[in-house]
Amino acid sequence: MEQQGSSTSAGRGKAEKEFVKEITPQSVDYSQWYIDVVLKTELMDYAPVKGCMAIRPYGYAIWEKIQQLLDRRIKDTGHQNAYFPMFIPQELLQKEAAHVEGFAPEVALVTKGGGETLAEPLVVRPTSEAIICDFYSRWIQSWRDLPMLINQWCNVVRWEKVTRPFLRTSEFLWQEGHTCHRTEEEAEKEALLMLGVYKEFLETEMAIPVIAGRKTEREKFAGALRTYTVEALMRDGRALQAGTSHNLGQHFARVFDITFLDQDGTLKYVWQTSWGVSTRLIGALIMVHGDDRGLVLPPRIAPIQVVIVPIISKKAREEVLAAARRVAETLQQAGIRLKLDDREEYSPGWKFNEWEMKGVPLRLELGPRDLEAEQVIAVRRDSGAKEPLPWAELPRRLPQLLEELQGDLYKRALQFQQEHTRSGADYGEFLQVMERERGFFIASWCGREECELKAKEESKATIRCIPFDREMEHENCLVCGEKAAHVVYFARAY
Amino acid sequence: MEQQGSSTSAGRGKAEKEFVKEITPQSVDYSQWYIDVVLKTELMDYAPVKGCMAIRPYGYAIWEKIQQLLDRRIKDTGHQNAYFPMFIPQELLQKEAAHVEGFAPEVALVTKGGGETLAEPLVVRPTSEAIICDFYSRWIQSWRDLPMLINQWCNVVRWEKVTRPFLRTSEFLWQEGHTCHRTEEEAEKEALLMLGVYKEFLETEMAIPVIAGRKTEREKFAGALRTYTVEALMRDGRALQAGTSHNLGQHFARVFDITFLDQDGTLKYVWQTSWGVSTRLIGALIMVHGDDRGLVLPPRIAPIQVVIVPIISKKAREEVLAAARRVAETLQQAGIRLKLDDREEYSPGWKFNEWEMKGVPLRLELGPRDLEAEQVIAVRRDSGAKEPLPWAELPRRLPQLLEELQGDLYKRALQFQQEHTRSGADYGEFLQVMERERGFFIASWCGREECELKAKEESKATIRCIPFDREMEHENCLVCGEKAAHVVYFARAY
Repeated sequence: MEQQGSSTSAGRGKAEKEFVKEITPQSVDYSQWYIDVVLKTELMDYAPVKGCMAIRPYGYAIWEKIQQLLDRRIKDTGHQNAYFPMFIPQELLQKEAAHVEGFAPEVALVTKGGGETLAEPLVVRPTSEAIICDFYSRWIQSWRDLPMLINQWCNVVRWEKVTRPFLRTSEFLWQEGHTCHRTEEEAEKEALLMLGVYKEFLETEMAIPVIAGRKTEREKFAGALRTYTVEALMRDGRALQAGTSHNLGQHFARVFDITFLDQDGTLKYVWQTSWGVSTRLIGALIMVHGDDRGLVLPPRIAPIQVVIVPIISKKAREEVLAAARRVAETLQQAGIRLKLDDREEYSPGWKFNEWEMKGVPLRLELGPRDLEAEQVIAVRRDSGAKEPLPWAELPRRLPQLLEELQGDLYKRALQFQQEHTRSGADYGEFLQVMERERGFFIASWCGREECELKAKEESKATIRCIPFDREMEHENCLVCGEKAAHVVYFARAY
Repeated sequence: MEQQGSSTSAGRGKAEKEFVKEITPQSVDYSQWYIDVVLKTELMDYAPVKGCMAIRPYGYAIWEKIQQLLDRRIKDTGHQNAYFPMFIPQELLQKEAAHVEGFAPEVALVTKGGGETLAEPLVVRPTSEAIICDFYSRWIQSWRDLPMLINQWCNVVRWEKVTRPFLRTSEFLWQEGHTCHRTEEEAEKEALLMLGVYKEFLETEMAIPVIAGRKTEREKFAGALRTYTVEALMRDGRALQAGTSHNLGQHFARVFDITFLDQDGTLKYVWQTSWGVSTRLIGALIMVHGDDRGLVLPPRIAPIQVVIVPIISKKAREEVLAAARRVAETLQQAGIRLKLDDREEYSPGWKFNEWEMKGVPLRLELGPRDLEAEQVIAVRRDSGAKEPLPWAELPRRLPQLLEELQGDLYKRALQFQQEHTRSGADYGEFLQVMERERGFFIASWCGREECELKAKEESKATIRCIPFDREMEHENCLVCGEKAAHVVYFARAY
């Protein structure tokens, strides 16, 4: 697909000679590398309000792909979208004790409207359990109304002290699913189903391998019975919580009085879940696949999958451009999202740099020498591998090549994750690993918050999850040496 | 597409005998008819915050269709989506004098965040010109950065005193396009292009005929040079502004300092436009096509285009259900959005009422007698016309029938509009028409605000627009009798 508008052309306003590749290497300063990448590839820009940002067209196009691919899965599992009010009366947020304790410190409050001071301040939603439960208490009467399976895509606000583009911003975009069920078993099944959807989505579409498991009591969602999570590993060895799914039990149902008349004629409280992923996934995408030259985007999520750069010389100008246009047309018909970069004010080398920085998975070069051979040179963004491809084979070969690249990115990320996952029973070794290499550290834990907190204070690492698919290797708690109850993943986290 | 979840089944929680069709007839009380329809068809529900609402799944599915069909057109005309912060520093909103005057009285203010009082209150966006111009002043440097063609889909807040579901709510959803251009001509062309997109979209997809034209100085957008509008006529004879497109001139560029270095080496201010449509389109859809039995949805925008209701008798139960499922499968493969209503706790008659109320364009009945004939009975929502259709012909015939229905709804709406459009030069007649029949009244106007205001005070009608495609019929102003300058459409409006 041809991308228009200025945002896809970093530095279009600058003369070519001014183009300088100014991305700090990851090894020098990973945080600065991240900031350089998000700004220079025009994914976002800082807002005049602290902690807020604009998501620029190239960044938003990634979010649109995420929305499209995830929304399909949300609907295929029987959910419908809706939209709930952004303003929550303070009194509603305060109903569930743990919930208010978790969110009250970071809310933004509207105290004036239409020139007048409001009788009761309104909370700008930090998450929508409270307002949605208020509606559900009226919409649900009978077992026939269940399950209630609703999702919404919206903005939320959490007043954060320390912010970082995409990873933690005061306003962000997300989807939040909110469901009600007849039985505890059904709610538990739903919470796990949606965690599974997130895992499959992340691995299949974003090429991000994740560890799935349960959060500890200390790390669970404010108001939940149990929180499930998928955790990804960034290239600097820190973990990032990529999505969560909560079994809310009957905590909210009881305080919001969400009851239904069951088939047996008795009035019962519903069992609930909620689950969400946010624009922070864009941050994960950057940090799992990116390198010193900038973004590396998996083809399935890339706004531009293929860029064609014609190598224009004076004498073969028209012929090269015409061939490039023919190739572009063929590929668009084959359903590939592509850009033909036929700008004449920039050299091919400048364009190579720019599209590499922007993470376009595949570049096709087409110069005078390729005319007779009726071919293009395909260059992979991830490996730099070059391959001549006959024009006639492009519609068949390119989709394959993109899928291969997608698979290779996943394998590379999985290999990195595995190489940066240690396990052990030696607390001193754990502290050293967290200080030097980071990554995941698998250990046994007694289950007491005391040990969890001690480990956090001394290592800056938290328990990311109690994994689903892992046996305990050591019998004793990593921290206190007492009998262990769980195997857990530790990591320093974003 | 099979719709799941409880929201598509009004009254699922009630026993069948309790189903009562409680929609007030339009002729008795049009406003109450509207409220009955939006509540009983579960398009929305009132929020605990005054003036706010939840858009329920059936209503949101309509919004998703609007988004999908309009977003494609916005992208096809070269625009990209982005997302800008919801919070606007008060100081930014105050930069453009007319803009602040227009919006300041109805803003919601965030004064506290994270437990602390903010140094400067933040405005929750009522529209995003101010915040977007702040970004554009940094993003635009050179003529190469132009045109800047960006759109966003988001929520906005305007603190309204009198609200009505979809038509005027304190929070609503919309899209807002914001563009910058090198020349005045380009900006004017863009503003008119997007008005044309709205007109074509409304007429083609929503079957809503509109009058396109220019707003008067008094009615134009706060901060615009010129505002263009498309105006639709509701069944109660009131007009509804369905979409607007503004040529902003250089008003914002000058106060936000959005300049570019042109090819001739001089620094110039950009020329801007903005344009938007909102969830109020759902209100228009209801009021243009709806009747005393409820919604009537045009097939292209209907979340469910076809409902299959099997007429189940004891002896042919399995055969009828099996046939209904086969038909459903065939139609789903043909790309039709359909629901097979095989609930056994409701009678066919109950289901007929429900799906008619929900405005599903086409109902297919399939009973024991249809098995041998291998047919269904198709019933149109708009006319009630019945037609037997052989199963084998459905994949070919149904899409045609839906398109015919779509076209007939447009013709019916256009006929209503034409029958309720009067013209004249007699001010007394004008007042009578506005009082009794309403509708559009085409007249000549001298161009003075004095006459515009007098007419408004005495008739409660405003000038909806100065139409593009209409010659002046009378030489003198309807109100003062002096020489007229424009032909205008008057109407009472939502």
